[in-house]
Amino acid sequence: MKLKVNDMGIATGRAQIVILNKKDAATYDLHPEDRIFIKKGKQKTIAILDVAESKAVPPGRIGMFKEVVHILQAKQNDTVSIELAEKPQSFAFIKKKLGKEELNKEEIYQIVQDIVDHKLSQIELTTWVIANYMTGMSVREIVYLTEAMTQTGIVLGLKNKVVGDLHSIGGVPGNRMTMITIPICVAAGVVMPKTSSRAITSPAGTADTMEVFAPVVQPIKVLKNILQKIGGFIVWGGAINLAPADEMVITVESPLQIDAEGQMIASIMAKKASVNATHLVLEIPYGVGAKIPNKQEGERLGNLFSLVGEKLGIKVKVVLTDGSSPIGNGIGPALEAKDVLLVLHNDAKAPSDLRKKSLQFASHLLEFTGKVKKGEGLQKATEILESGKALKTFTAMVNAQGGKMLQSNHIQTGKKMYHVTAHKKGILKHIDNYLIAKLARLAGAPQDKGAGIYLFKKKGDAVVKGEKIFTIYAHNAQELDFSATVCKQKHCVEIQ
Amino acid sequence: MKLKVNDMGIATGRAQIVILNKKDAATYDLHPEDRIFIKKGKQKTIAILDVAESKAVPPGRIGMFKEVVHILQAKQNDTVSIELAEKPQSFAFIKKKLGKEELNKEEIYQIVQDIVDHKLSQIELTTWVIANYMTGMSVREIVYLTEAMTQTGIVLGLKNKVVGDLHSIGGVPGNRMTMITIPICVAAGVVMPKTSSRAITSPAGTADTMEVFAPVVQPIKVLKNILQKIGGFIVWGGAINLAPADEMVITVESPLQIDAEGQMIASIMAKKASVNATHLVLEIPYGVGAKIPNKQEGERLGNLFSLVGEKLGIKVKVVLTDGSSPIGNGIGPALEAKDVLLVLHNDAKAPSDLRKKSLQFASHLLEFTGKVKKGEGLQKATEILESGKALKTFTAMVNAQGGKMLQSNHIQTGKKMYHVTAHKKGILKHIDNYLIAKLARLAGAPQDKGAGIYLFKKKGDAVVKGEKIFTIYAHNAQELDFSATVCKQKHCVEIQ
Repeated sequence: MKLKVNDMGIATGRAQIVILNKKDAATYDLHPEDRIFIKKGKQKTIAILDVAESKAVPPGRIGMFKEVVHILQAKQNDTVSIELAEKPQSFAFIKKKLGKEELNKEEIYQIVQDIVDHKLSQIELTTWVIANYMTGMSVREIVYLTEAMTQTGIVLGLKNKVVGDLHSIGGVPGNRMTMITIPICVAAGVVMPKTSSRAITSPAGTADTMEVFAPVVQPIKVLKNILQKIGGFIVWGGAINLAPADEMVITVESPLQIDAEGQMIASIMAKKASVNATHLVLEIPYGVGAKIPNKQEGERLGNLFSLVGEKLGIKVKVVLTDGSSPIGNGIGPALEAKDVLLVLHNDAKAPSDLRKKSLQFASHLLEFTGKVKKGEGLQKATEILESGKALKTFTAMVNAQGGKMLQSNHIQTGKKMYHVTAHKKGILKHIDNYLIAKLARLAGAPQDKGAGIYLFKKKGDAVVKGEKIFTIYAHNAQELDFSATVCKQKHCVEIQ
Repeated sequence: MKLKVNDMGIATGRAQIVILNKKDAATYDLHPEDRIFIKKGKQKTIAILDVAESKAVPPGRIGMFKEVVHILQAKQNDTVSIELAEKPQSFAFIKKKLGKEELNKEEIYQIVQDIVDHKLSQIELTTWVIANYMTGMSVREIVYLTEAMTQTGIVLGLKNKVVGDLHSIGGVPGNRMTMITIPICVAAGVVMPKTSSRAITSPAGTADTMEVFAPVVQPIKVLKNILQKIGGFIVWGGAINLAPADEMVITVESPLQIDAEGQMIASIMAKKASVNATHLVLEIPYGVGAKIPNKQEGERLGNLFSLVGEKLGIKVKVVLTDGSSPIGNGIGPALEAKDVLLVLHNDAKAPSDLRKKSLQFASHLLEFTGKVKKGEGLQKATEILESGKALKTFTAMVNAQGGKMLQSNHIQTGKKMYHVTAHKKGILKHIDNYLIAKLARLAGAPQDKGAGIYLFKKKGDAVVKGEKIFTIYAHNAQELDFSATVCKQKHCVEIQ
């Protein structure tokens, strides 16, 4: 059957979707979620059908979202032919998992390939995520999933015997130790190809903060050169297409506020395998407000990471930490970058919690990768930091990535400010981390590097009436107003 | 924040969805699947957010699907204000079920209410369906679900002590016994308010076939009058909004080709509760090609129906039948209607399998509702059919529903025909039921009442070369061509 193209002018970044008018769908006996083979001259694709009552897509027309328009190189009013197509191969494998059966290597590989190729509908992708969430995955399945996610993306292709990596399963605000720990280890001679994430719902990811100093999007070739010259980098993983299946899965997990364990382990380990990591130090913060509620759970999860790592040839050292408090004072890219610089400069005003944690993890990495003997890591790390070698290495990394090293007072923060002061004398009992993060985002972070929040006081600190607790920074008055308005409505801090 | 309306001109019949440009979403820190509170003067609603790169929805604009346009009474270029809203209450309960916990009455009621109000996103609805599918539901949960589905729709409100009902869990083509069994029972004095379904993926539902004779869409008031006057009707359940949550769940189950047991039981029982049924005869066809693979499974499912029925005050009699063969010769509304008339007229050409099955189920109903003693049902049913009383009652029902009784030869079938004949002498080993149904639909059924297929031969029959096996009927040449083309490409029949 022949239909004329209606370009809907919308790109959603998800599966390929086309729309038929209800009347045409009835005539051709087609149903929502059917697969439709579409041909336009030599171009062809398979899209997922939606059926609508629509003036925008009258009978005789096929509404196309940008993803389909692009693949078919279609224009408004072009003629295409369509016919019913089969569901993708992985549909049967998703049904198998739904039946609580264990999947084999080929089946998991096919599912991941179809996810990456945007072939699964939202219903199918959700079914895959939920089925895994509910039945769990065997270690074997997690390993296959990791391998499939690695292979459907870019792989760095290093052949070094020892490649270090650092990861935190996250959930702790302001945790920017990466930008201090990595230079310390690189200065000690450990190869550290660090890929970081950008913020999704937080005010800054490590990639956003690193970007205050240097571009974090680099071609693979440049990254390999930097590794050879300096031994490490800190870039945005998303730009080099590592394990891209992860992003699609997140479109389902994020609105459901779930993090399916097998999927999470595979996503993290796939990114490590993509940069050929051999030694991974993994932080698992636990405690009230963290992702992992208690130590026991943290240990169980850590063991699972180690088991999967073993099958992949990646040694994993798990470090459990107290995840109930934020680390550092700045929240938002520029304000966090200032914290990092203060530590690297051994400045007396540097947040001591950030300094301590960075040294601790550098110590773990130095000992784990065999750079120093057991028990000597902390001394070595401290020496590198205090001697200025860490700062020197960080500067070299920044320059190699095409950036320019800044002084702390040259880092621009938002010119518009809103101060939150203590309404009475007392002890700061509580700062609402979730709300603080939200205020920083409303003020413009992470898009506006200089937007965010600076905490002058932390939980447990004494305050007197009128003393500053935190300041909201923004670049323009409207965004400051968004943030300040929400701040006034809600209780961000509690003084007793 | 204020935005101008872009009417997308599309209605999908699903959740309320709005689209923001990627830039605006970043500025306001909004994410796909977030809930957005929208206000236009006094009109307000909560919609689900989609984020797109789009010329159709530039910054400063909000793209609205018809469902939202309608509720807000919005027009192109109207100004609306938006803000972030909470997820619906039932989100937490769906998450609870995802955690494999049993839900209580209030939780299930809230979920069903939110489903009916189109408040759940496709991801959330899929999660609900899959979580139930994977953990199963307790009898208590099924009962709550049934009650919630009943109460969110129309209820007939009968107060009769005995109200009979008949249901088949389906999967057997051409099974039109309802239109014979019901008049027999009504003629015997059983009150039978029969609601039937239209075809979704089959060539005809009972409602489609009944419509050959009479309108199947009737106001509740008219239905009550008919019950008082005649004692029974056969109408389309969909038109009277019985248990409407079912339709939304089907949008997920149908493309996944699953039928979650608890949901299925609740859907069926809710429709029975809605018409105040007290005695339900339930057919469970089992065997190769049927929904239920074997007798044991059929018995287990039957017990579950009985248990749920008990809590709802509905007595359930389960009848297990051989579901491996089709019943009757006609497929498609008019052709099936002809079969029904032949049986009601006691015509020698009537399909004997359809006649036998109709009498069998009438017998069960008469005995179960206490109209006759045990062992006397078949005799009574046969007497009513052979005396012409069943035909007379059916005629009265047709007239009461505003229709007109037809003679078999006055039922119009498609003028365009395509005959499939035996390519050699032998025994008909196989007719592909799925394909036969597909051919009937491509020929125009159920929209074109006269379109469909008439089977001259059935499995096991002897054929000689050139003898007609079946005929495809269509109203226009194009649809006959669609069907015939597929018929030529595929092997519909096998002769040995």
